[in-house]
Amino acid sequence: MTKSENTKNSSSIWGGRFEGGVSSVMERINASIAFDRELYRQDIMGSKAHADMLVKTGIISRADGEAITAGLTRIEGEIESGAFAFSAALEDIHMNIETRLAELTGDAAKRLHTARSRNDQVATDLRLWVRDAIDRISADIDALISSLLDQAERHADTVMPGYTHLQTAQPVTVGHHLMAYVEMLRRDHGRFADARLRMNESPLGAAALAGTSFPIDRQMTAKALGFDRPMRNSMDAVSDRDFAAEFLFAASLTAVHLSRLAEELVLWSSDRFGFITLSDEFSTGSSIMPQKRNPDAAELVRAKPGRITGALITLLTILKGLPMTYGKDLQEDKEPVFDAAEHLMIALAATTGMMRDLTFQPEAMGDALKHGFATATDLADWMVRVLNLPFRKAHHATGAIVALAEQKGLRLDELSLEDMQSVLPEITADALSVLTVDHSVASRMSEGGTAPAQVRTAIAKARQDRP
Amino acid sequence: MTKSENTKNSSSIWGGRFEGGVSSVMERINASIAFDRELYRQDIMGSKAHADMLVKTGIISRADGEAITAGLTRIEGEIESGAFAFSAALEDIHMNIETRLAELTGDAAKRLHTARSRNDQVATDLRLWVRDAIDRISADIDALISSLLDQAERHADTVMPGYTHLQTAQPVTVGHHLMAYVEMLRRDHGRFADARLRMNESPLGAAALAGTSFPIDRQMTAKALGFDRPMRNSMDAVSDRDFAAEFLFAASLTAVHLSRLAEELVLWSSDRFGFITLSDEFSTGSSIMPQKRNPDAAELVRAKPGRITGALITLLTILKGLPMTYGKDLQEDKEPVFDAAEHLMIALAATTGMMRDLTFQPEAMGDALKHGFATATDLADWMVRVLNLPFRKAHHATGAIVALAEQKGLRLDELSLEDMQSVLPEITADALSVLTVDHSVASRMSEGGTAPAQVRTAIAKARQDRP
Amino acid sequence: MTKSENTKNSSSIWGGRFEGGVSSVMERINASIAFDRELYRQDIMGSKAHADMLVKTGIISRADGEAITAGLTRIEGEIESGAFAFSAALEDIHMNIETRLAELTGDAAKRLHTARSRNDQVATDLRLWVRDAIDRISADIDALISSLLDQAERHADTVMPGYTHLQTAQPVTVGHHLMAYVEMLRRDHGRFADARLRMNESPLGAAALAGTSFPIDRQMTAKALGFDRPMRNSMDAVSDRDFAAEFLFAASLTAVHLSRLAEELVLWSSDRFGFITLSDEFSTGSSIMPQKRNPDAAELVRAKPGRITGALITLLTILKGLPMTYGKDLQEDKEPVFDAAEHLMIALAATTGMMRDLTFQPEAMGDALKHGFATATDLADWMVRVLNLPFRKAHHATGAIVALAEQKGLRLDELSLEDMQSVLPEITADALSVLTVDHSVASRMSEGGTAPAQVRTAIAKARQDRP
Amino acid sequence: MTKSENTKNSSSIWGGRFEGGVSSVMERINASIAFDRELYRQDIMGSKAHADMLVKTGIISRADGEAITAGLTRIEGEIESGAFAFSAALEDIHMNIETRLAELTGDAAKRLHTARSRNDQVATDLRLWVRDAIDRISADIDALISSLLDQAERHADTVMPGYTHLQTAQPVTVGHHLMAYVEMLRRDHGRFADARLRMNESPLGAAALAGTSFPIDRQMTAKALGFDRPMRNSMDAVSDRDFAAEFLFAASLTAVHLSRLAEELVLWSSDRFGFITLSDEFSTGSSIMPQKRNPDAAELVRAKPGRITGALITLLTILKGLPMTYGKDLQEDKEPVFDAAEHLMIALAATTGMMRDLTFQPEAMGDALKHGFATATDLADWMVRVLNLPFRKAHHATGAIVALAEQKGLRLDELSLEDMQSVLPEITADALSVLTVDHSVASRMSEGGTAPAQVRTAIAKARQDRP
Repeated sequence: MTKSENTKNSSSIWGGRFEGGVSSVMERINASIAFDRELYRQDIMGSKAHADMLVKTGIISRADGEAITAGLTRIEGEIESGAFAFSAALEDIHMNIETRLAELTGDAAKRLHTARSRNDQVATDLRLWVRDAIDRISADIDALISSLLDQAERHADTVMPGYTHLQTAQPVTVGHHLMAYVEMLRRDHGRFADARLRMNESPLGAAALAGTSFPIDRQMTAKALGFDRPMRNSMDAVSDRDFAAEFLFAASLTAVHLSRLAEELVLWSSDRFGFITLSDEFSTGSSIMPQKRNPDAAELVRAKPGRITGALITLLTILKGLPMTYGKDLQEDKEPVFDAAEHLMIALAATTGMMRDLTFQPEAMGDALKHGFATATDLADWMVRVLNLPFRKAHHATGAIVALAEQKGLRLDELSLEDMQSVLPEITADALSVLTVDHSVASRMSEGGTAPAQVRTAIAKARQDRP
Repeated sequence: MTKSENTKNSSSIWGGRFEGGVSSVMERINASIAFDRELYRQDIMGSKAHADMLVKTGIISRADGEAITAGLTRIEGEIESGAFAFSAALEDIHMNIETRLAELTGDAAKRLHTARSRNDQVATDLRLWVRDAIDRISADIDALISSLLDQAERHADTVMPGYTHLQTAQPVTVGHHLMAYVEMLRRDHGRFADARLRMNESPLGAAALAGTSFPIDRQMTAKALGFDRPMRNSMDAVSDRDFAAEFLFAASLTAVHLSRLAEELVLWSSDRFGFITLSDEFSTGSSIMPQKRNPDAAELVRAKPGRITGALITLLTILKGLPMTYGKDLQEDKEPVFDAAEHLMIALAATTGMMRDLTFQPEAMGDALKHGFATATDLADWMVRVLNLPFRKAHHATGAIVALAEQKGLRLDELSLEDMQSVLPEITADALSVLTVDHSVASRMSEGGTAPAQVRTAIAKARQDRP
Repeated sequence: MTKSENTKNSSSIWGGRFEGGVSSVMERINASIAFDRELYRQDIMGSKAHADMLVKTGIISRADGEAITAGLTRIEGEIESGAFAFSAALEDIHMNIETRLAELTGDAAKRLHTARSRNDQVATDLRLWVRDAIDRISADIDALISSLLDQAERHADTVMPGYTHLQTAQPVTVGHHLMAYVEMLRRDHGRFADARLRMNESPLGAAALAGTSFPIDRQMTAKALGFDRPMRNSMDAVSDRDFAAEFLFAASLTAVHLSRLAEELVLWSSDRFGFITLSDEFSTGSSIMPQKRNPDAAELVRAKPGRITGALITLLTILKGLPMTYGKDLQEDKEPVFDAAEHLMIALAATTGMMRDLTFQPEAMGDALKHGFATATDLADWMVRVLNLPFRKAHHATGAIVALAEQKGLRLDELSLEDMQSVLPEITADALSVLTVDHSVASRMSEGGTAPAQVRTAIAKARQDRP
Repeated sequence: MTKSENTKNSSSIWGGRFEGGVSSVMERINASIAFDRELYRQDIMGSKAHADMLVKTGIISRADGEAITAGLTRIEGEIESGAFAFSAALEDIHMNIETRLAELTGDAAKRLHTARSRNDQVATDLRLWVRDAIDRISADIDALISSLLDQAERHADTVMPGYTHLQTAQPVTVGHHLMAYVEMLRRDHGRFADARLRMNESPLGAAALAGTSFPIDRQMTAKALGFDRPMRNSMDAVSDRDFAAEFLFAASLTAVHLSRLAEELVLWSSDRFGFITLSDEFSTGSSIMPQKRNPDAAELVRAKPGRITGALITLLTILKGLPMTYGKDLQEDKEPVFDAAEHLMIALAATTGMMRDLTFQPEAMGDALKHGFATATDLADWMVRVLNLPFRKAHHATGAIVALAEQKGLRLDELSLEDMQSVLPEITADALSVLTVDHSVASRMSEGGTAPAQVRTAIAKARQDRP
């Protein structure tokens, strides 16, 4: 890198006072147009609202306002048609658009930035973008909930092993298992909704950091952009990135939930489980092992918390210890937000597709329940209920019966009454009735329990909550 | 490590079936009593609510219920007086308490665990603990807001440099600067409040994972423990740690805000700034440099996001890809939560103390404003307003005037009218009136701007929002 | 918190100049004695080396030096016997020891800190501690490698499914699978060794930050403490925490490796796989499901990367953007280091124990290989080798044969030659010979491949590398 | 998303067996060509080495080998000239190239993948890429060290305040301060070098996971690709991403060091410090405040640890708990590596440029030393050395003198001898000689101290270490 690599930069917005040029290294580290062009719609929307307000308050003329609006509309078209020529020398989306606007409208364009700064402008743009992302993601979460509800309804009675520690614990219904994810996703939805409410305030009008002496109307621009109100403090308005951090956290936790479901899809589709068959659409083969049906989509979903929590850490690290107000450090806020949003949406779509298309294999799940003594708790509970044994004693007696079954190589429901009585003489034939998996799940009628009736109630409730 | 190091573990709750003992390594990795004793109050509260419900629903006798309640009350006293002997062999707080209860009440204790599992028990305990922590932290945030409001009120008119990029940008009032932190903390408060609402549901009654066949009343226990309702799905109830993750995120972002303020306190108390004097209480000296007044408390607050976002990453990493339902991995959820809560509270208290006790130095801040051409924007805005120059042109003219002043070694308000007119002939003497810092801040009357009148309005509004 | 809560602090090391006291909040945030007492041995060792050097260079008298050394030895004894009374008012381990030394030796103690500062003192202490931790962890890694080698040797010929995407891909030997972990651990060992070499330099003599005008001998203290040399730059010496960050990274990656093995132990010990039986020592039961053998230790090991990478993030976050030289932020370096070291050692010990004690179940692994068409690649390779088919064509032909077998519900080695020829007429009976799993593993004789002969070579090489 | 959106995918490498197509969602989540095209050079280099080996060992014919090599050379040209048409339907860089090769060479191309899998292929490609990145970054670190050495030499005698806690502690030389960063960067260099050594082993020949039955020569391909040796275990070879994690850690810590220097550049270039002037090339202006010279490049460098430690967390999160061997999760390894490498190189170049071009302002640094009693330690040391006071007593006496000076509004060297004697009667006029900053720095002749002579020695040593 030598000084001769400097680019001519005479049109630079801040070059007025500087004698030197800008080195190519500087342009590489400083220019954000490669990623912040993603904000073009929000930037144009914000500029239009600002221009309308400048006209309304008499700060610029109606003619200038109309020229600006027409120019911005034209630029939006140019960008969407691919005709717009982005320039790294112009650094960012804001100057790319403003410079083009000056070409189209001359001095009118030069009045647009009155009572505004790039600081409140970019804060507004990113807020609008994140708000849109929340809306799109919320819809995607709803779609996934729908496909979970459909499968849960289909399998409200289908019995599968319920695991703790990946050991068979008690039988549960497939529907009940899937409804656990509906609960997680409902909370995710709520977190995005809360974030949206909290962030839906307008930074516009904060100017560089201190507000402005022009008689602007921040209520008007806030309303025009769909914000609930202007932000209360101009210094906070230009330096706050809480909304992005909160978005990234909500995205991280959603991604973690998807990764848990993805892990289960990987397990269930392995030949050791065989509980599900993924559709061809969401499986891939192998270049060397033609028999493979790899759950690639599920594995990629499982990996997504990596990049999304990485993005969260990125932003929190940037913000740590940053003094007021705007610092260029904040330019590094956008890429993690864009990347996290994109990949969360992909993960949601892939999970929805997998869930919609997969086939459960009730027979394999039923076979699995023949191992693992899944109804041991039912036996212990019977002892408590019928024999009035203290729970801890019932537990010990059941443990001894399980040990006997294991030693004999039998399932619990294959043990004879005599075998059981050899451990606990008080046991009666009535106890045998609680040892089937269907009886087990049907009996767990406690609120929120796995009994098919409870599951159906839960599904109905979840459907009712939806818009 | 040899097998002979195994501990006798005959009283172990799960030892019934096992022939081998438990190695000391296993005890070290498995026992949680060293940290989960922190949950003793919540565990006892939960057990009492469960016992009352078991009596009410007829699952255990009134006599057993009374014995259990009396025993638990006595145990709580023993723990608080330091008389309770915790045992690592009993693994966790739940078994330590239950085992002591059995010593005190015999078979009644053995009935307490009916229709309950450690899985829903520990989920309930931690939820109650986090809810308490949210309440304490919310009060601590309120206290910090109060001390900020007091200082902001005292200095609603005090002028200081407003920085962007740590370069003097425009004059602001100290009150306005402090109110930016009030805004951040109000959002933090809101995030904790949202988290509290979302988490305030009872896992109790989910049992191991599937619910129970006993006729329990989950509404009753939920109400007794101050929860808004039971959780809807038993599998989710025992494996959900969202509430802890959301708590850790709210704590992380609050800590980030405190670190930003702490950075400013470190800067402001350095001899290069001299904007504040920290009280002796919150300064320390040096073992080798007796003249130092080190802002140790501020530096420690600045460092706290390290451990708190570390705790957030800890939990998100643990949850990633974890299949349903409870896995022992979840035992690692408590220490990050306890540590983050403790250190956030310390950081809030220290910041409140520093803010309450520090002295602003208006003279030093005024001196600082003599550098940096802080009213350049005011001049540019005057050109737009009075001369009707397009903003971008006014900006370039102002830049040239600043360059002239810098070259002459003068402040903007020391330049002669002739000097200014040499750049822009249209300038009149009226322009000189906008160049003082007091005029500058007073003029920024836009909503949320730094004008003292706006700051006083903001303080009043913030006080009104408080309970 | 009121001012009346201030503690008297007249003996404070830095209190000489201050008129106010220290508030209790300040003591809570500032005092580190609760955790840095962990450094007592290192602190005493460092002080002895420093005192010896002060005597040797004539900076203090021999008599003072002897009094100091005797006093420090006595203090070490007091701490180890539990007789030492730690005081939070004295803030940290350094002042606790120095104050006690003053009680024992009077003015001699007051000369110990000549040409030293807490800044270089604490940097030295922590470096010594981390160096010890590296040595202990390296030994623990060796122990785990040993138990892996023993199992690998025992099962060099035992065949199991080799998975990609958790789908059966090709047969491998258990020994080969375990040797993959030996490779990871060898790299971990190397990373700790590199970190040790890089960190083994002495900060002592850097004083507060600038060095000292006393004629000290840094080579002498460096040598006495086992360091390879003094650090080159005094400002770096007091502010560098690279060694701690590098330690935490090496620990994080080791923990990630252990988590991968732990995940496999959880899978393999589930009833769906049944590939291993964990010993009773490293399993636990359930309070409600007596039949469970939960792999709790494996799950806890799987979770450990949470806290250890959390600790890494903690330190990197603290260091980010910290200006020179020492800042109190650095006091937050110790707890993540101590916690990560402790839990990595626990995880290594638990994994070593599990690996040593577990029993592989060759029959279950063999049964598993009857599914999944694990020798499909062998068939494709046969077509390439014998029929000279291009690889991609062989791949497609094999895919069609697998599809046929799946449709007929047969294993590959159960298909008739005719069936195969219906897909690819050129196939001969010779192809059938490559379809057994034993033939498959034996044939993979490429360097580093899974053939038992290769595995035995690898084991021998790994044993040879060991001291 | 409906099934009708499925793309035709008849040419898919793994489509042979599948009846359904691939949904567009699947293509979006699964295709990696958008980022792994970055690997094209490494992929072609690896394929050539593999083809040469297949010829040498007789596995394919010389004619096929030559066709492959010629085809690959042509493809490399097409990619570099922009003529190559990448296809998302072909998923990744490997299949894009192989498919084009088939167009060019027919069956020869179909033989290239013999005894190879995408699993060992991609592991080889990424390793080669990371090795290149290490080499480029190491050169960039060297360049930054050079510019630091040049400035350090220029300012070996220039005095500035040395800070602890951002409070003036003792005078240091600018050269000494800069050499602290040289030490950090030397360690960074060492960490990259160690990582390079450890990673420089060849995965090629591991095939899918188990090795191969073809008589390949892994030594030959390893040597051809510049690797020191083949990796020892085929399962490890395809699933290991340690090298990427170690790279990301070395990058993270380097970025943290740069962020510390950047923070100092931001401070020093603020008007409160004024210690440096950044060149126009590395400053920017403001759209609303024409007088600003914003240290944007420094702020962006300060922010870079955000994304780079974020990338580290991304990869560690992905790897956590991943069972053997290859899982599609690993496809998420590349983007964090590419992004971190790119941004570390940008940050290094920008820091080198800033350091080379900036101007130190000795007068401002000298003025700053008039505050803060920077030679208090010198006075205390004089008392110890000349009066033989115990260090702690000298410290208290000095503290009292500083308090007196502060109260009188004088610097230490402005106090009269009488004033000093009013605190400590034994003080003589000789003490006054140690109170100048030049005397102070010159006196700190301890090894690694700030005395100009020591700094010059350190610079010479550092230059000598360089190639």
